[in-house]
Amino acid sequence: MLTNFKKHIEENFSFLKGKKNLIACSGGVDSVVLTHLTKNLNLEIALAHCNFSLRGEESDGDEQFVTAVAEKLDIPIFTETFDTHKYADEQKVSTQMAARTLRYNWFEEVLSNFNYDYLLTAHHLDDDLETFFINLSRGTGLNGLTGIPKKNHKVVRPLLNFSREEIMNYAEANKLKWREDSTNQKTDYLRNKLRLEVIPYFKETNENILKNFKKTQDNLIASQNLIDDYISLVYKLVISKKSDSYHLNIQKLQELPHTDELLYELLKDFGFPEWNDVSNLLDAQTGKQVLSKTHRLLKNRDELILSEVVKNPKEEEYLVPEEGISAPIKLEINQSIAIGETEKNTIYLDAEKLNFPLKLRRWKKGDSFKPFGMSGSKKLSKFFKDEKLSATEKEKIWVLVDKNKVVWIVGKRMDDSYKVTDKTEKIVEITYVS
Amino acid sequence: MLTNFKKHIEENFSFLKGKKNLIACSGGVDSVVLTHLTKNLNLEIALAHCNFSLRGEESDGDEQFVTAVAEKLDIPIFTETFDTHKYADEQKVSTQMAARTLRYNWFEEVLSNFNYDYLLTAHHLDDDLETFFINLSRGTGLNGLTGIPKKNHKVVRPLLNFSREEIMNYAEANKLKWREDSTNQKTDYLRNKLRLEVIPYFKETNENILKNFKKTQDNLIASQNLIDDYISLVYKLVISKKSDSYHLNIQKLQELPHTDELLYELLKDFGFPEWNDVSNLLDAQTGKQVLSKTHRLLKNRDELILSEVVKNPKEEEYLVPEEGISAPIKLEINQSIAIGETEKNTIYLDAEKLNFPLKLRRWKKGDSFKPFGMSGSKKLSKFFKDEKLSATEKEKIWVLVDKNKVVWIVGKRMDDSYKVTDKTEKIVEITYVS
Repeated sequence: MLTNFKKHIEENFSFLKGKKNLIACSGGVDSVVLTHLTKNLNLEIALAHCNFSLRGEESDGDEQFVTAVAEKLDIPIFTETFDTHKYADEQKVSTQMAARTLRYNWFEEVLSNFNYDYLLTAHHLDDDLETFFINLSRGTGLNGLTGIPKKNHKVVRPLLNFSREEIMNYAEANKLKWREDSTNQKTDYLRNKLRLEVIPYFKETNENILKNFKKTQDNLIASQNLIDDYISLVYKLVISKKSDSYHLNIQKLQELPHTDELLYELLKDFGFPEWNDVSNLLDAQTGKQVLSKTHRLLKNRDELILSEVVKNPKEEEYLVPEEGISAPIKLEINQSIAIGETEKNTIYLDAEKLNFPLKLRRWKKGDSFKPFGMSGSKKLSKFFKDEKLSATEKEKIWVLVDKNKVVWIVGKRMDDSYKVTDKTEKIVEITYVS
Repeated sequence: MLTNFKKHIEENFSFLKGKKNLIACSGGVDSVVLTHLTKNLNLEIALAHCNFSLRGEESDGDEQFVTAVAEKLDIPIFTETFDTHKYADEQKVSTQMAARTLRYNWFEEVLSNFNYDYLLTAHHLDDDLETFFINLSRGTGLNGLTGIPKKNHKVVRPLLNFSREEIMNYAEANKLKWREDSTNQKTDYLRNKLRLEVIPYFKETNENILKNFKKTQDNLIASQNLIDDYISLVYKLVISKKSDSYHLNIQKLQELPHTDELLYELLKDFGFPEWNDVSNLLDAQTGKQVLSKTHRLLKNRDELILSEVVKNPKEEEYLVPEEGISAPIKLEINQSIAIGETEKNTIYLDAEKLNFPLKLRRWKKGDSFKPFGMSGSKKLSKFFKDEKLSATEKEKIWVLVDKNKVVWIVGKRMDDSYKVTDKTEKIVEITYVS
């Protein structure tokens, strides 16, 4: 195996040479073998071991064992002890998820504080096959079948080409010692069930099953690469970036075959909860929108506008197209042939003076406007004081702005500059439907 | 299930209405249920049953049973008896392959002779999951994981959305009778092993496994569709068709990312046995070529030329680029500064008179040329007679032609029109390396 591993590193991971590599070492057979193999190749390595305090003395025993391995091989070691149960309770996540987060955060710290270049983990081909089945069991797509990446930024997995059996054989042939980590096997029901009951029978169907699986996965990765290339091309064709938003040209997208599938590939990473809502937006009225936790997708005439949702509500901003919007508040915008009855919630403006799309946002200190019917300018803070608004009422105020100039304090008062005059040729009526 | 089936037909198979549908009916529960469901929907159906004579009385019993079903439901039935073992021996194929070929050939006949529009088969979702695992076990790619097509030309599979359990429940609830077909279960070791040992355990990992599998497969089909769209686009960009060959522009292909993967997608259907040979052709010398049973791929300067291998050797034709070719015979072509020693196997020609690529082909009746040193024209048949060539010798003769005009009877005599004269500015030397 050492020969194969050496060849594998030369061909696929030669970038590890001359770099400082940190090995995630639990003390299990996989990470112990990875430690010995990389040491044998004279790569510069150190070990990093997490003690999750989940199995009392057993956990401490693992830590002592890994420390002894490091001493024997004369390589540096970093260890850290976590109160995983406490963290899981605090963060309201599963123990497994807590361990995962703690582990990767700490690895990140060590990499950065001690100038290590790469983190090496001991995932192997059987892990990969198990993950394939886990994703298949839950329902997945091409991406869920292409496997754990060999390299993902700083995380490198040089054992992915090797089977559990090869690793075990190497450990036994070289009389290596390791610790049996019972945690994963006990807590991960699904992986365990696949490992012990499904995959062994599946392996009996073909003696080259792992080799064939490797080949299959390489083919699937090739397919994924082609899709990624195609999507880059489609992206250039249909999407244009403007300051803080992305504009998708609907007509151009619809001219391509499999529009829905393309839309999905373009937008899948933005976490929109109901895919049908996104897909329906293509044929929806202007002003309709779909929200995810992080992003907003707005239908605006012949385009979909993707923008980030700003976490701080004070910084929320919504584009308001000529046809109005339905969220976060409903504004109906129509052309009008005459000025109707002016109310708090309906205003009439000179269309020529407006540059759509307008923006809807919270008011800010420093905002000022020329109250309708007055000739002088007034700070909004002063206006609110005069109107005797409470702090809570002030917080709920929306302002409609045109290039950051206040057009309307929604439901309160419009700016005098936008009013209809004798020279007005086209009138716009905006109604706030509360 | 009848309600779901009706809805499924309305949504996805409404084209079956008003058409004549033939149901492949073995007498097993799947095809019996399909027969009853389609009959209940008042689709126009007939049954087609193959008796493969593989299980003696049991086979005949199946036939009698299906005939009785047809009579009871008052629908037409077609039956045919095959001597499958004899056919398998004659064709040197497995019994399973023989049965498959006989079945589909006969279905094709019935469809055509009795004007049936579609052949309906009773493949269901569990069959699909088994096929997924079979292909995975053997090693596959995206295409091997996207499942049996719902519709493939005239073959339609309306039960693919339903599980074995649903079909079984319908049969039992409606007190249907069927025959247990033991053949498949006994002969198809791999499918049987998966069905009985692997998949039952896999199903225990998630109660929605079949639903999730369906979802996964729909996602994979979407991915495959995007790849097909991309390949159509790349095809238009890099391939041009000329009379009887396809010319692939290497530079344009290499400007795209994942060149090898694209080349594979473009050429995967032509059966080239060694993919590396095809891939290496991109950087090979002009004249190198790769052959499959049906096609030839020739490197010619900055292009790969794909053409069909003509089965009739008399119609074989090979493009000969300026740099010569290595198969079917080796012709070295070089520029020469002077006329060297003329031999049977080496000729010198006036470059200006040649239009590359030339063609190499067998001689035909009617071919004539002006033998070197003579002023008159002569039929090749006459030339061969004068040279006293045997029939076998004549069969082995290659001629090099320029726009169908004979330049050289290879290894025998060149045409006088191409010879080097006082006016020749560039000399070409062609050597036949025998």
